Amino acid sequence: MLNDYNLTMLTDFYEITMANGYFNSDLKDAEACFDVFYRRVPDGGGFAIMAGLEQIIAYMKRLKFTEEDVEYLRSKNCFTEEFLDFLLDFKFSCDVWSVPEGYPIFPHEPVMIVKGPLIQAQFVETFILMQFNHQSLIATKANRIVRSAMGRPVMEFGTRRAHGADAAVYGARASYIAGCAGTACTIADRNHGTPALGTMAHSWVQSFDSEYEAFKKYTELYPQNATLLIDTYNVLKSGLPNAIKVFKELKPERMGIRIDSGDITYLTRECRKILDAEGLTDCKIVISNSLDEYIIRDVILEGAQIDSFGVGERLITARSEPVFGGVYKLSGIQKKDGELVPKMKISENVEKITNPGFKKVVRFYGNDHGKALADVIMLRDEPIPDGKPFEIFDPNAVWKRKVLYDYTAVELLVPIFEKGELVYEEPDIEQIRKTCTEQIDKLWGEFLRFENPQTYYVDLSKPLWNLKHDLLNKYGSANL
Amino acid sequence: MLNDYNLTMLTDFYEITMANGYFNSDLKDAEACFDVFYRRVPDGGGFAIMAGLEQIIAYMKRLKFTEEDVEYLRSKNCFTEEFLDFLLDFKFSCDVWSVPEGYPIFPHEPVMIVKGPLIQAQFVETFILMQFNHQSLIATKANRIVRSAMGRPVMEFGTRRAHGADAAVYGARASYIAGCAGTACTIADRNHGTPALGTMAHSWVQSFDSEYEAFKKYTELYPQNATLLIDTYNVLKSGLPNAIKVFKELKPERMGIRIDSGDITYLTRECRKILDAEGLTDCKIVISNSLDEYIIRDVILEGAQIDSFGVGERLITARSEPVFGGVYKLSGIQKKDGELVPKMKISENVEKITNPGFKKVVRFYGNDHGKALADVIMLRDEPIPDGKPFEIFDPNAVWKRKVLYDYTAVELLVPIFEKGELVYEEPDIEQIRKTCTEQIDKLWGEFLRFENPQTYYVDLSKPLWNLKHDLLNKYGSANL
Repeated sequence: MLNDYNLTMLTDFYEITMANGYFNSDLKDAEACFDVFYRRVPDGGGFAIMAGLEQIIAYMKRLKFTEEDVEYLRSKNCFTEEFLDFLLDFKFSCDVWSVPEGYPIFPHEPVMIVKGPLIQAQFVETFILMQFNHQSLIATKANRIVRSAMGRPVMEFGTRRAHGADAAVYGARASYIAGCAGTACTIADRNHGTPALGTMAHSWVQSFDSEYEAFKKYTELYPQNATLLIDTYNVLKSGLPNAIKVFKELKPERMGIRIDSGDITYLTRECRKILDAEGLTDCKIVISNSLDEYIIRDVILEGAQIDSFGVGERLITARSEPVFGGVYKLSGIQKKDGELVPKMKISENVEKITNPGFKKVVRFYGNDHGKALADVIMLRDEPIPDGKPFEIFDPNAVWKRKVLYDYTAVELLVPIFEKGELVYEEPDIEQIRKTCTEQIDKLWGEFLRFENPQTYYVDLSKPLWNLKHDLLNKYGSANL
Repeated sequence: MLNDYNLTMLTDFYEITMANGYFNSDLKDAEACFDVFYRRVPDGGGFAIMAGLEQIIAYMKRLKFTEEDVEYLRSKNCFTEEFLDFLLDFKFSCDVWSVPEGYPIFPHEPVMIVKGPLIQAQFVETFILMQFNHQSLIATKANRIVRSAMGRPVMEFGTRRAHGADAAVYGARASYIAGCAGTACTIADRNHGTPALGTMAHSWVQSFDSEYEAFKKYTELYPQNATLLIDTYNVLKSGLPNAIKVFKELKPERMGIRIDSGDITYLTRECRKILDAEGLTDCKIVISNSLDEYIIRDVILEGAQIDSFGVGERLITARSEPVFGGVYKLSGIQKKDGELVPKMKISENVEKITNPGFKKVVRFYGNDHGKALADVIMLRDEPIPDGKPFEIFDPNAVWKRKVLYDYTAVELLVPIFEKGELVYEEPDIEQIRKTCTEQIDKLWGEFLRFENPQTYYVDLSKPLWNLKHDLLNKYGSANL
């Protein structure tokens, strides 16, 4: 899988044409600063979840052009020999900061910053975006689904509908970070420790001469967890009676029934009544049929009797909105022996104007309740507010002001690489999962709503706002 | 990448619990037959495109459980030691048939058949579905987009929004099969021969002291294909005038402008007028901003002046419908020394009832025009119709009948593996791409419509229809 593989060449071709261009211009030794951020929460939600950093780190650690890569590039007849030689000696030496995985992240704030040689910092764009976009997309969607289940376990069952092997494996990983109880994907368990579970397919039931025989054999083999798929023929007339018969005969340690079709609310209520009447109150009911956060919320509200959910294609593809729009934008450039010149992308659409300069992001938590109050994007050399009253304002409506008191301010972007050396102690997946739960607990309920959530404050510091508006005035008139 | 990697463990955990179950039951030596098919064309289209076979073959050739895999499985404490020993000696020995990549495929017809030891034929389900679902999804979407461009080249630009590395690479591969001119994804070119192309990002333009300098440097370096991104500041006031200045000064061999924002129709018409007035009639116009088949069709109808398209997130994620619902269903089971017993999945939903037995699929082409007339699913031992008048009928409305005359009938499913040995001469990607074009040319226009296409005939032979209805009568009453 990706963690073990050199994916240097998994990049847009233009990263290489630009690198060759910089190499052969007076920007050869320039340094640059790029921000990763996103503009809109998928599905109209209130926040996204940061994910994918571990794989980005693995990629950066392995960055290396092989002789074979360079041979291939030479065949394109558009790169200079000096540049191809340079690629063979390429060594990643950037500084990288990132929000740790599992944190809620909000539109427009930098969630990762890459600073270093322009050629390198530009080159890593494609892979960073791909990995961040994919895993954050799935983590964000999975967390919505997990929250809709109101404490009932949700299993990720989507491997067969994933967009290829990495989508299956890293989708399972992102889902687990976001709170799923496990996955159907075996290799994700083996490689990433996301617990794999699974029961039986309809073909198991069909392969035996009768449903009863199929259930009996399975329960004999797996008495520690006998979950039987009861909808191959007819849930109430055949599947449930056969399951009950087997459970009474074999008395497995743990038992369950799974329903994969039909009306969830009706069938689970009927099954629960019959199971309880038969004294099988311990028997769990698992549901798995084109589920998402809306269906789960609805059937729970309707009184469906469900102990856990298996969620497939709508989670693993984030079907309702399968694109996470993370972008990678230049925020500053520094020519040899010069100072960092802040850069911004100007657009007719105000929302698309970027924030210039080398920055950091500070999250303010209220000391009385521990909840997050606001994030403020600051210039790198500004001090982190130390508890004194701090005025924030809406960058798009500067007359909207608010003073924060009695807070703790925490820098969100932590150092990952320093001059290409990994300085980050990577948490394991259980720690990341715990971080995710803890940090979402720090959000007020109004940001957790599935639709029309309150908008969390992401403001600019006064120095950053001033810099941005100075540049807007300068560039705006110079280039338009 | 996947082609080089043993992905045996990329499987739903239940495939392994079922395998252990079969191994420890009297189905240990049973043989089975499974069909791969899909039920509905994404986006309401008239057909899908078969893709992913090459990667399924690579997977099957490499199927092998390592000591490490078995050690991991042992730690789950639910498999017998005899079974784990068996896995270490596991050797794929199934027969496999498939529709070749690039062919149009229709709902409900088997596009792949796996026949062999039940344990093996069951085990490969997850990977086959994942690969078939992903690549067919992207090929089908890409082909819609390519057709909307009416002959203008379409480039696949979506790597940064793909669901991980495999989604990027095999998405690029599937897009190329389906008619895209190339990709931005470098590694897809190196590994699969899908031509990689690319120009510059906004950051290139911003890194230089002026837009003019950025354009000039790029054109000096890449005179063989100088495509300049002209919307960093302002297309008409800055980007286009600077590009024209550079083109006139440096006279590159090929030149183009790319626009990534703003109103496509207005801007391209204005640019074309100005370029032509300046004598730059050879300058190409490339567009790339959240495109799909509908936007492309609309702007062409509006008279936008576009030479080629770069299409990103809406292609690489099949954003409008990111799930391809391929399924893998048991069609027959054969106990040791017994005969193959046809199996079918019964459902209250008639559309979900499967077709039983070991089958084949025949496509009828009219001899006068070469167009496809109908597909007929037959039992394996039925002869292929040899040109005599052949009556087909709608399996869901048997009174709808039609006699085919003067046709050529071709078996669609070709042998891929025989007893685990690869017997298929794998075509290269250019051949597959050519097959795709040729086979889509054999469909009448009414099946190509983006919305409300005519439904292509996929019928059952009389013997298969009889078998299905006999089983429906038998199972239906026995199990309900």
